[in-house]
Amino acid sequence: MRKVAIVGGGATRCGKREATWRDLVQEAGKAMFDSLSNLSPKDVDSLIVGAAQPERSAFQAHVAPMVAEYLGITPRKVLARTELMCASGQAAIRYAYACVSSGLSDVAVAFGVEKMYMPDMAEAQTNMTCVLDREWDGVNGLSAPPFFAMTAQRHMYEFGTTKEQMALVSVKNHHYSSLNPLAQFQKEVTVEDVLKSLMISPPLQLLDCSGITDGAACVILVPAEDAKKYTDTPMYLAGSGQANIGNAVGNLASLTDWVPLRMAVEEAFKTAHISSDDIDIAELHDCFTISEIMEYEAFGWCERGKGGKFIEEGQPYIGGKVAVNPRGGLLGCGHPLGATAILQALDIMQQFRGEVPKGRYVEGAKTAVAHNLSGPANVHSIMVYSR
Amino acid sequence: MRKVAIVGGGATRCGKREATWRDLVQEAGKAMFDSLSNLSPKDVDSLIVGAAQPERSAFQAHVAPMVAEYLGITPRKVLARTELMCASGQAAIRYAYACVSSGLSDVAVAFGVEKMYMPDMAEAQTNMTCVLDREWDGVNGLSAPPFFAMTAQRHMYEFGTTKEQMALVSVKNHHYSSLNPLAQFQKEVTVEDVLKSLMISPPLQLLDCSGITDGAACVILVPAEDAKKYTDTPMYLAGSGQANIGNAVGNLASLTDWVPLRMAVEEAFKTAHISSDDIDIAELHDCFTISEIMEYEAFGWCERGKGGKFIEEGQPYIGGKVAVNPRGGLLGCGHPLGATAILQALDIMQQFRGEVPKGRYVEGAKTAVAHNLSGPANVHSIMVYSR
Repeated sequence: MRKVAIVGGGATRCGKREATWRDLVQEAGKAMFDSLSNLSPKDVDSLIVGAAQPERSAFQAHVAPMVAEYLGITPRKVLARTELMCASGQAAIRYAYACVSSGLSDVAVAFGVEKMYMPDMAEAQTNMTCVLDREWDGVNGLSAPPFFAMTAQRHMYEFGTTKEQMALVSVKNHHYSSLNPLAQFQKEVTVEDVLKSLMISPPLQLLDCSGITDGAACVILVPAEDAKKYTDTPMYLAGSGQANIGNAVGNLASLTDWVPLRMAVEEAFKTAHISSDDIDIAELHDCFTISEIMEYEAFGWCERGKGGKFIEEGQPYIGGKVAVNPRGGLLGCGHPLGATAILQALDIMQQFRGEVPKGRYVEGAKTAVAHNLSGPANVHSIMVYSR
Repeated sequence: MRKVAIVGGGATRCGKREATWRDLVQEAGKAMFDSLSNLSPKDVDSLIVGAAQPERSAFQAHVAPMVAEYLGITPRKVLARTELMCASGQAAIRYAYACVSSGLSDVAVAFGVEKMYMPDMAEAQTNMTCVLDREWDGVNGLSAPPFFAMTAQRHMYEFGTTKEQMALVSVKNHHYSSLNPLAQFQKEVTVEDVLKSLMISPPLQLLDCSGITDGAACVILVPAEDAKKYTDTPMYLAGSGQANIGNAVGNLASLTDWVPLRMAVEEAFKTAHISSDDIDIAELHDCFTISEIMEYEAFGWCERGKGGKFIEEGQPYIGGKVAVNPRGGLLGCGHPLGATAILQALDIMQQFRGEVPKGRYVEGAKTAVAHNLSGPANVHSIMVYSR
């Protein structure tokens, strides 16, 4: 198993973009190749494209060779698209990682892209109902917001978590995204703003939810031994954890104990030889405020049920126990499904390089985790990155 | 890079099935686990699902954890879906291969499934127009049949290939599929049948085209050193080749010279340390009769432009230069997109084990290739299997 490094990347600004799917791809790809003087598209031998539902939102399948064509890449080792809904981008990173690690590839691009704004936004909403088991859950209207609303209700019931505590997650992440020029939402919000925002699915208000977002991003993976050819500051893939139990919501063992997340954390820590205390930066999947609260618990920074208190104490801020989502998270940056994990990886690389604005810079950070969940929180995917 | 083996698998019968997407998954999975006394779903640590467009044909995304749930698998190392349209299944095998080879996984299932029959078959047809670049080609009605019709016309013009020669490919593959109980079409056809069948897109008649098919299949990959724990007759993954150049049809360098296929063949041969003379069985992607003719040429069994003559001489029959599609090919077995490559792998394994009916059994076969193309033949994917 070869050690693998990320040596560069690029991204679009995220949000409601006056740009086609094709435009987004080119914008992110150009940013990446422009930033690397020693690497051209022709050097890339493999391309993995993470995209959640281009067939529905852009009426386009077979997207991997389209991305290759737009970027001038001619893959000659491995080419594929990965789909794992909200974790599609991390699936692309993991496949590229497996390729470089096994020796199948020497220069692999992991690309993520999603065009979610559609002329008819009702169709965009409908598309999201095919994420959960359509026959059991989607048909009953159980898309992401009501599922996470149920989860939040149960967490409030079991542990006394409050809406104010959840709102604090949104406040923190919007604070950091206000310092991120790629973010969809660059305005700070207050607890009051969150609590007064549109009710989506009780107890979740609009500002408890991540956005509908257009965006694209990419990173380049090479064997660690080649990394210094391309950059003085490579970022290493130190470990990986992924786990899934069940799918239909009625089959989940618990709403408030994400067993597959605990399994993925354990595997990620084991493969990276770290514990929760070693983590300087955590890019966590805050698709809803309640998710981030539950993730504090599963990563072991606080006890089960104490996630609300953890944010109340300011522990997940820079300078606290661990810097959680100093990028701005999904809540602040938006959530272009296939691109999200790549955007996380890229921001961590920029943190390690000291290239992020003051105010959201985690000085001296050496170890970071990036986490994505998908579906009814039944699949959890984690990568560990190190300097 | 660890050597990898396939130790078992299972499949559904293919065709127009009175079965849901879910039924197909369970049928193939049950066949696999029933055939392996030493391996249960709980032993599987990784699952890669190849599926081309469940979002459109089954209105279902996030399909990898659904397959896991139906099969009783709880992935704890790697989980994802791969999409590469007609080669989605081979993309799943290749990802599983990379996982086991790199050490990320010790027991990985590559699963392929497609439910293509829909209540409204016009919708099924429309769905296929999103395979080619929608903005440049799909919008002009360039789906698979007209694209391969253009290719056939050009091959006829350049090399004098005839409709009768193309028909002979269909005759051969239907002959073999008549001996395959999993095949969609189990009836022999004559050259006259082909030439008199419905005109689809000149010069391609109905029997020059592979079918719309429901089906599912799966195989289990483990490190070669563990293979004998599960079976006395493992099949080894001896090499891999995959290449892509361009995407929009107007950008392709040539209709009759598939450069990425030649690149993929070269890489597959290099990694497996073989030449075309070493191949006993070739499961080639005969989505249309012209494809198989062009593949004889690209694999080096005959000169460029002589593919028509090659089938006329009976060379791709068992006992000829190389046994091409003794399973019955896509023409005879049908083409359930995500499942096709897995069905090919499974049949090769059964060939190596001597478990296929007489008449399509390639005695003493030791080396096989499985090939899939996707899109406008701009992506070619090859695996090499050995006993």
